[in-house]
Amino acid sequence: MFVTFEGIEGTGKSTQITLLADWLRARGQEPVITREPGGSRLGGELRRILLSMESTDITGPAELFLYLADRAQHVATLIKPALDQGKTVLSDRFADSTVVYQGYGRGLDPKLLHAFNDVAVAGSWPDLTILLDIDPEVGLRRALARNLAGGTHRSEGRFEAEHLEFHHRIREGYLAWAALHPGRFRVVDAGGSPDEVFGAVRGHVAALLEG
Amino acid sequence: MFVTFEGIEGTGKSTQITLLADWLRARGQEPVITREPGGSRLGGELRRILLSMESTDITGPAELFLYLADRAQHVATLIKPALDQGKTVLSDRFADSTVVYQGYGRGLDPKLLHAFNDVAVAGSWPDLTILLDIDPEVGLRRALARNLAGGTHRSEGRFEAEHLEFHHRIREGYLAWAALHPGRFRVVDAGGSPDEVFGAVRGHVAALLEG
Repeated sequence: MFVTFEGIEGTGKSTQITLLADWLRARGQEPVITREPGGSRLGGELRRILLSMESTDITGPAELFLYLADRAQHVATLIKPALDQGKTVLSDRFADSTVVYQGYGRGLDPKLLHAFNDVAVAGSWPDLTILLDIDPEVGLRRALARNLAGGTHRSEGRFEAEHLEFHHRIREGYLAWAALHPGRFRVVDAGGSPDEVFGAVRGHVAALLEG
Repeated sequence: MFVTFEGIEGTGKSTQITLLADWLRARGQEPVITREPGGSRLGGELRRILLSMESTDITGPAELFLYLADRAQHVATLIKPALDQGKTVLSDRFADSTVVYQGYGRGLDPKLLHAFNDVAVAGSWPDLTILLDIDPEVGLRRALARNLAGGTHRSEGRFEAEHLEFHHRIREGYLAWAALHPGRFRVVDAGGSPDEVFGAVRGHVAALLEG
């Protein structure tokens, strides 16, 4: 089973992954937890390039292809081998981030980006994608509070510096893209407490496990 | 004017670029000479990743996207600015290498690869692409002699290690792809001496300059 978590900053993706992993472990599973960018050895190098402050001169298309290279390697060296062994894989962001951020966010054609993803994903599409949905002002306030508390990922600092209007576009993009793929996506209201949100997440995962 | 040189190993691409640059300089031009992979600062890092021996675990799709990232950055930071300043740019390999090596060579769809290139190239397609054509056995013998003479590029060592049959497929792929783009491609027999080959190259460039 391959489950990905998507959504703007401050929706609580990593918190929900931790809660889901605990829940799966209590059921005797050993989930593999990963993230993009950076889920492989090559990915570690690319993550460093992508997120370093000196990389602000990387152009949009170059950035897009670095994310896709990271994803292709991530799938081939980590995700597919784990799935082949019957493990459950949980990823913090995956292919849909590219469609939404580069497509709905930056104006590239989402269908073309999906064709790019298809090469990178090489058949290992998620069985379930949880879209954690929240008002961007609430999400950014949460992300800011986390950063002030010292938990900043450099990964996210760069995105959070971008304009609120952009985050609104990303949220709408996620919802539009999810509506185009109703078989795989489940939209979860991320406005409640972590436990409230996890109630909904767990319901969708349980339905898949029983399915 | 943007001119790219393509062809299998041992066709004399870099020799022809040197001869063409000299010829252009004698006409008062200052050509910009570049190559792929590696024509930008990001490209230098990616070239190191792509060509290092430790990178043999990079999967095909990841490699493809690293080449595309390199190209996108190369175009945006070097090729397009030079063309905008009215300079002539000569590149040792460019977008067609991806179509031919990953498409005809490795089985990906050439038309899909062309769509990928279109994003990376962002409008800066070459005005002229010289395809240096040679029998792979002759080309590989030349490349081997050059390497034995101490002129090995690590870049090429990796490719030359591949099977002769693969190089035949690449040669046929180049010819097929050139036939699909007769407006931009000129096929030059690279079997003669460097001066003989340059006679044909110069003719095509002169025709473009007068065009």
